[in-house]
Amino acid sequence: VNGTHYRAEIGEQPAALRRLADRAADFAAVARRIGERKPTTVRLVGHGSSDNAAALGVYAFGLLPHLTALRDSISLSVYYGATVDMSSSVVVALSQSGQTPDVVQYVERARADAVLPLEVGTEQAVAATKTYTTQLAALVLLAAACSGRLALADDVRRVADNLEEALPGIATAAADVAQSFAFVGRMFVIGRGIEFATAREIALKLTETCRVAAEPLTATDLAHGPIAALDPMFPVWVVASDDEALPHVVAAAARARGAGAALIASGSAAAAVENAAYRLPVPRATTPLLAPLLSVAPGQLFAGALAAAKGLDPDMPVGLTKVTLAG
Amino acid sequence: VNGTHYRAEIGEQPAALRRLADRAADFAAVARRIGERKPTTVRLVGHGSSDNAAALGVYAFGLLPHLTALRDSISLSVYYGATVDMSSSVVVALSQSGQTPDVVQYVERARADAVLPLEVGTEQAVAATKTYTTQLAALVLLAAACSGRLALADDVRRVADNLEEALPGIATAAADVAQSFAFVGRMFVIGRGIEFATAREIALKLTETCRVAAEPLTATDLAHGPIAALDPMFPVWVVASDDEALPHVVAAAARARGAGAALIASGSAAAAVENAAYRLPVPRATTPLLAPLLSVAPGQLFAGALAAAKGLDPDMPVGLTKVTLAG
Repeated sequence: VNGTHYRAEIGEQPAALRRLADRAADFAAVARRIGERKPTTVRLVGHGSSDNAAALGVYAFGLLPHLTALRDSISLSVYYGATVDMSSSVVVALSQSGQTPDVVQYVERARADAVLPLEVGTEQAVAATKTYTTQLAALVLLAAACSGRLALADDVRRVADNLEEALPGIATAAADVAQSFAFVGRMFVIGRGIEFATAREIALKLTETCRVAAEPLTATDLAHGPIAALDPMFPVWVVASDDEALPHVVAAAARARGAGAALIASGSAAAAVENAAYRLPVPRATTPLLAPLLSVAPGQLFAGALAAAKGLDPDMPVGLTKVTLAG
Repeated sequence: VNGTHYRAEIGEQPAALRRLADRAADFAAVARRIGERKPTTVRLVGHGSSDNAAALGVYAFGLLPHLTALRDSISLSVYYGATVDMSSSVVVALSQSGQTPDVVQYVERARADAVLPLEVGTEQAVAATKTYTTQLAALVLLAAACSGRLALADDVRRVADNLEEALPGIATAAADVAQSFAFVGRMFVIGRGIEFATAREIALKLTETCRVAAEPLTATDLAHGPIAALDPMFPVWVVASDDEALPHVVAAAARARGAGAALIASGSAAAAVENAAYRLPVPRATTPLLAPLLSVAPGQLFAGALAAAKGLDPDMPVGLTKVTLAG
């Protein structure tokens, strides 16, 4: 049956997150080694879902140990051979397979040496779900450990419990909403700040599993051009979480609605998005940095349901393989 | 007439670039002040076209003075109040208007103090053209000055001359190709490395002036998911320049073609893209970092021609204003 692995792996996320939270000692050990280097900069590298997770890392390292984290350019050093000084940097390479060629080359150049396996078990579906959420949690746990906040593991456990409880309800609601989208060819997915990672990942799930051209945009980027493209046939998915960026997301959603777009609002603050045609709320996370662990679920489940409605297989999207070796 | 300013301003780009190149002493002065701070990091901030230009800044500062440049998160400090150490950083804020609210707030927090006006004159069309290319050139000139390479101003002048000579031919070719795209609703625009800025800017022009949902992707990101969405009705614009990233761009284009997509190839290496349905070549820049000054022209002109064919006005796209005050 299409999407059997994909659906099962969405359901395995809470257990995978709990296993990760149980490894607080490993995170503390890596954080100690990072601390010895007295880094100023954290370089995050990855492609696809891994790069989406890295977008959260920018906020986790910025807000917890107050380090500058960047989604670094892989091509600058790997293809153009730039010799940037990395002596006060830590490199965090994110890869589901550990084999993505240019990520491996980047790491070899930078001579990174600690490995933190995600303990997710094998992910069979090509469309990533549990590797994405464990990458998110690993980045936040590592950033927390770098600032001495080891208790964050308890928050991850709590979020895992909330997610487990909420998944069946979200699955039903998402399948219901997906029915209306069988013939949608393009969408924007907007989020801001901590939840921009979620907007990116939901857009990628829709694109790879449902063949929808879904572009992720920050709430502010939407206003700088793309809003001109909207019309009533152009849905906009709004990721709205209860944090400091929310007013900007709500304002951007109102502008999109004003341009005629149909809105799908998801996240813990889905109710704050006015005039949404559809809402897929999730529980509020105890720590805003962990909200993306919950916020991505409606997108994962909606994409699975829409793919099923279209007769597409999220376990094996056209033209994709689990390890991307070329390109 | 629709797009009068937009077309005129595309034509003003060579002169604007020459005026900028004449201010080498100003760039040298700012570079001296930057050098006194002994920075390790260059933080680039901007939205829309300015953020697209910043994507080139990452390569310019990385390849010339070997500094780590990043398109910094504005929301991390402005909305979430993160207190990241900026003592060894230089901030380069990019704004057409100088008034974008959260960019101004970011700069006030960072206490940046040098201003380099772009000398472009007033840009009347809402869709940016000459401010984008002068931002590109300003970033490369500043990075070059930071590494003592003041002679790069001559290269900018040469590229300006090449651009001036090539524009009429590109305009004719682009208008010709645009005729076939009147009913296209979605596209991907791919580039990599130095030319990713161009892919971003061409996608933005298509989205804001032609209401096409055009998503920019690195050649590698295309292979990590979005390739699954392609079919014969889904065109892919390929920005191909003669530099180290070219083999990866050519390989990604071949995969897109294999998935059935129609290819438009532009750039100095447009001829290297096999089985392209359309080609919009440009002259080769003497310095690879300046190639984007030429490579963006086919996109600007194609967008103008397609907007005209659709009866849309690039001088005043629906729902946009020149200064984006809300977000």
